[in-house]
Amino acid sequence: MNPTQLLTEQLIACHSVTPVDGGCQDLMIERLEAIGFVIERLHSNGVDNFWARRGTEGPILCFAGHTDVVPTGPLTDWHTDPFVPTIRDGHLFGRGAADMKASLAGFVTAIEKFVAECPNHKGSIALLITSDEEGVATDGTVKIVDMLEARGERIDYCIVGEPTSSKVCGDTIKNGRRGSMSGQLIVKGVQGHIAYPHLAKNPIHLIAPALAELATTEWDKGNDYFPPTSWQSSNIKGGTGATNVIPGTVELLFNFRFSTEQTVAGLQKRVHDILDKHELTYDLEWSISGQPFFTAPGELSEALTAAIVAETQITPELSTTGGTSDGRFIARICKQVVEFGPINATIHKINECVAVEDIPKLSNIYHGTLQRLLGA
Amino acid sequence: MNPTQLLTEQLIACHSVTPVDGGCQDLMIERLEAIGFVIERLHSNGVDNFWARRGTEGPILCFAGHTDVVPTGPLTDWHTDPFVPTIRDGHLFGRGAADMKASLAGFVTAIEKFVAECPNHKGSIALLITSDEEGVATDGTVKIVDMLEARGERIDYCIVGEPTSSKVCGDTIKNGRRGSMSGQLIVKGVQGHIAYPHLAKNPIHLIAPALAELATTEWDKGNDYFPPTSWQSSNIKGGTGATNVIPGTVELLFNFRFSTEQTVAGLQKRVHDILDKHELTYDLEWSISGQPFFTAPGELSEALTAAIVAETQITPELSTTGGTSDGRFIARICKQVVEFGPINATIHKINECVAVEDIPKLSNIYHGTLQRLLGA
Ligand SMILES: [Zn+2]
Ligand SMILES: [Zn+2]
Repeated sequence: MNPTQLLTEQLIACHSVTPVDGGCQDLMIERLEAIGFVIERLHSNGVDNFWARRGTEGPILCFAGHTDVVPTGPLTDWHTDPFVPTIRDGHLFGRGAADMKASLAGFVTAIEKFVAECPNHKGSIALLITSDEEGVATDGTVKIVDMLEARGERIDYCIVGEPTSSKVCGDTIKNGRRGSMSGQLIVKGVQGHIAYPHLAKNPIHLIAPALAELATTEWDKGNDYFPPTSWQSSNIKGGTGATNVIPGTVELLFNFRFSTEQTVAGLQKRVHDILDKHELTYDLEWSISGQPFFTAPGELSEALTAAIVAETQITPELSTTGGTSDGRFIARICKQVVEFGPINATIHKINECVAVEDIPKLSNIYHGTLQRLLGA
Repeated sequence: MNPTQLLTEQLIACHSVTPVDGGCQDLMIERLEAIGFVIERLHSNGVDNFWARRGTEGPILCFAGHTDVVPTGPLTDWHTDPFVPTIRDGHLFGRGAADMKASLAGFVTAIEKFVAECPNHKGSIALLITSDEEGVATDGTVKIVDMLEARGERIDYCIVGEPTSSKVCGDTIKNGRRGSMSGQLIVKGVQGHIAYPHLAKNPIHLIAPALAELATTEWDKGNDYFPPTSWQSSNIKGGTGATNVIPGTVELLFNFRFSTEQTVAGLQKRVHDILDKHELTYDLEWSISGQPFFTAPGELSEALTAAIVAETQITPELSTTGGTSDGRFIARICKQVVEFGPINATIHKINECVAVEDIPKLSNIYHGTLQRLLGA
């Protein structure tokens, strides 16, 4: 069996529902120590993390990823046990197969091959691994980044192994992610009986024109790398349940996905301006889930692109779509952060899988990138 | 003790939380039979109702009311037991004191006095009493009206004993009530992930401009007797609870209070026109809680007004504000329906009460109306 597939299967067999690592990191660390990596484990509130580095010089090329997986959902919906790696129809099935145990295995085997070929490579190779990416992500990557930042250790190139491919393995590199900021808006009225509306102020009615304006506002047109900033409501709730009572408040939860065209403060001001223009009385609590980050085309994306073309004959697109990733934390200490991994069609779903033929390709692509950036 | 106050206290002592009568009707029927009333009891699904009539000729003057009361709320919030009539600071406290046991007592003692003075009165005196007014009102007044309608028995004048007075006893007669019609609107979008809004259709955003238009629409300007028709939302709900999901639907509950200027079909059409104009995909279920009714100033309101002026030196205002009442059912078989009773400031609240001095006034006012309409 291909060594990357074998390690992928070993990792799938580890029960690592977030934030549990389930033994994945021990498997990786054992192999990394065998080829000269220095390991720093960092445990935080039940989360396992490690930082591994081979070499003391710059530049540092880091592979970043997570060993935790999302819950399985109803086991009876799976064709086979999600923690028993199973081949069927050319695919390897198991929770985490695509997100992101094949990438983790690809990192390890790519590095093993590269170090064997080129023991005195340029710079340093690093791994930044957590078991808290799929959950709240408060004790994972951000803690290692805090540690590195505190001691002034920076990363030059970082490849996050998230499953970025869309239709075929190799078609998409993410070179940034939009920021995500949420708001909890409570618009206040005056509760009353529905038969006496002149004694009440109906907050459902008061919020409506402001909501209509927020929903149709063009925040920006996007740019070459980012789609337009989007504002979406996820939840609205007002009312006591009784059908003869005008409620006192209505609550709206909303979320911005925003590009590097915007700032947090700028977006907040525009929302407040609209609410104030409609003369609403309200409370608004903001929470910032992630700042946007962006890596302009450069050495890292070029090396990765060349490695992908060599392996797959496909020229990947650079994209910034989709949700947030741990890249948002790493960007604080690394100018060039990109993400690349297998097809993401089945991630977080029942019967998650990765194409068997794509598994060695991942290893070869990561290996090709190492060669191009750190080869002697 | 004043006989009306005594009977009011006896009625308050009956535990008659809707739809239970608790013995109130037995107390009333015993006294009505003693002065020549023919009683028809009508039990329906646990509800006690009766129709009582003295005389066989027209015109029929009917007193209509309910013996049931709303629940007490937390007993510890009451200064005294809500079913133990208690005098304090010139007020008689107890659940139902104002809504509407003082009125029921006033009916009985007014009729007793009038029959003693004028045993051969003109026309007929009737009472229409239910224990299902404060609840769903499906087995109460409407059932007696159905019975009367089926046998072609009509009422000429009806006084509903609801507590209509606002600041002082005698200040307000209701000569109509607005209709009430509710709608449950479900606006449909397409559920999706908040990071991929182009694959979803956000129903919270879709409903906003239609909601804004509905909330600001002038349905009519009202007329001499009715305030403008009002449209109010009571509840809005959309969202899965998750903050990263655009929901598939949003639900709005709303209610019209409408005058005789409007028809049910006309209002429904205007709502559909607005929803259609905003190109919404939706389900809308209507429910009609009550048609509007209106009694133009005439013999009944004039007799009642004169009786009020004679007793209180106050000229009552004719009003159609407030919620629905059983008058909506009686109006089907009676051209002149008005409502009159004590001050409604404490009804449905903790420490419900009626001013002791207002209790005999009620009896005198009902008596004065009997004299004016049926006196020999
Ligand atoms: Zn992932
Ligand atoms: Zn009542």
